[in-house]
Amino acid sequence: MNIHYLTLFPEMYDGVLNQSILKRAREKGIVNYHTVNFRDYAENKHNQVDDYPYGGGAGMVLKPEPVYNAMDEINTKNARVLLMCPSGRPFDQKFAEELSKEETIVFINGHYEGYDERIRNIATDEVSIGDYVLTGGELASMTMTDAIVRLIPGVIEEESHLDDSFSTGLLEYPHYTRPREYRGMKVPDVLLSGNHKLIEEWRQEESYKKTRERRPDLLENFNEKNEK
Amino acid sequence: MNIHYLTLFPEMYDGVLNQSILKRAREKGIVNYHTVNFRDYAENKHNQVDDYPYGGGAGMVLKPEPVYNAMDEINTKNARVLLMCPSGRPFDQKFAEELSKEETIVFINGHYEGYDERIRNIATDEVSIGDYVLTGGELASMTMTDAIVRLIPGVIEEESHLDDSFSTGLLEYPHYTRPREYRGMKVPDVLLSGNHKLIEEWRQEESYKKTRERRPDLLENFNEKNEK
Repeated sequence: MNIHYLTLFPEMYDGVLNQSILKRAREKGIVNYHTVNFRDYAENKHNQVDDYPYGGGAGMVLKPEPVYNAMDEINTKNARVLLMCPSGRPFDQKFAEELSKEETIVFINGHYEGYDERIRNIATDEVSIGDYVLTGGELASMTMTDAIVRLIPGVIEEESHLDDSFSTGLLEYPHYTRPREYRGMKVPDVLLSGNHKLIEEWRQEESYKKTRERRPDLLENFNEKNEK
Repeated sequence: MNIHYLTLFPEMYDGVLNQSILKRAREKGIVNYHTVNFRDYAENKHNQVDDYPYGGGAGMVLKPEPVYNAMDEINTKNARVLLMCPSGRPFDQKFAEELSKEETIVFINGHYEGYDERIRNIATDEVSIGDYVLTGGELASMTMTDAIVRLIPGVIEEESHLDDSFSTGLLEYPHYTRPREYRGMKVPDVLLSGNHKLIEEWRQEESYKKTRERRPDLLENFNEKNEK
C-alpha cells in the first residue's frame, strides 16, 4: 500500500511513522509512506497557500491551486483520496477494514483554516475521526493510518486482533496478569480456577455487562446482528 | 497546564509536540509536556512491562506495577488521569472544553495489549477518541492534546474557533477564496454580491443543509437546544 500525506507540516509525521508497527510495516515492505508539502506547489512568489474568504468572515481559506498541483504529481489512479474534515463521514472500524484493502491512499490535510470548497471535488471521501475540532488533519490522518495499517495481513499476528473491542461488536472483557494481589487489589478467583468453561462464561458476561453499562448503542447493533 | 504522557514510545510525541500550535503554546509558557517511559519503572531485571493473562487467551497484558510506580513520581494532585482505551467515554468537543480548564492532565497509554484491570483504578476517566482500534493510546492522547490545548485562552485567536464545526452545533458552511474560477469551478455569485445579509442567509442555509445531509444526529440536538 502507498500512503501519501498532503500537508503543510511534514515533520509532524516523523515520530509516528518511525515507531512501532507503522515502522515495521514499512520495513517489511508492506506499506510506503510519502509526505508532500503542498506549499511547494503554490503558484505565487511567497508560496502563499491561503487567502481571505469571499463574502468576508474570520479566518483564512486554503487555496485550491497548491492542492490540485500537488495531486497532479502523485499517481492517484484508483486511489482513495481522503479529505480530513469535521463534517466528513465518521471513521470507524468498518471503514478502517474497507480502507485496509486499498492500494493507494491519499490524505489531504488542511491546517488552521477551511478548505476552498473546490478542493472537496478532488476527494473520493471526506472523513472525520470524531466530533471534536483539531488544528489540522495531520493527527487524524496518522490515527487513521494506524487503524488501517494494523489490519493489513502480515503486519501484526492475526490472532491478536480477533478479540479487539468493536471487532466482536462488544467491548473487551477485563484482563488480569501477575501479581495475584497488588496494592490490595486481587485477581478474580474464576481466572485462577483453571476451569476454561467458567472462564469463558465469565468473560462473555463481563464483556456484555461493560458494553451495556458504557455503550448501550453498540449493544443494540450487536443484538440485532445476532438475532438474524 | 501540565500534561504528562505515560508511554512506552516517548519518541512518537516528538514530531507532533514540536510543531504548530502545540509548540507555540509551550513557547508562550501556557502548557508543559512531559513524556514518561513507564518501562523505566518496571520491577524486574529485564524491564518487562507485560505478562500472560490469567485464565489464558491471546495477547499480553500490561502489568500494574510500572504504571503505579510511574504515577507515584508525578504530582497528580487534582489531576485528571485519563486512561486511553476503546471502551472509554467517547471524546467530543464538550469533553475537550471541560479538560481545557484543568491544571494537570495525565494520559496513560497502553500499547498493543490490554491493561491489567487494576490499572483502571488509578484513572479518573477512561476515554476513547472513536470507534476504531489503535495500536496504542499515543495517537489518541496527541489528538486529544491538540483538541484541548487550542481551547486554552491565549493559544489561538478567540475569533478563529467561534465558527468551528460542533461549536455552533452545526457543520460549517462552504468557504471560497481566489481565484473566482479554477479549473472550470466557480465561486457562487452570492459571495461576490457584497450583500452581507444575503451572504449570511446563504451561509446559514448551507450549514443547515450540510448538517441535515451528513449528520442528522447533530441536527436533532441542535433543534432541541434552539427550541428551548
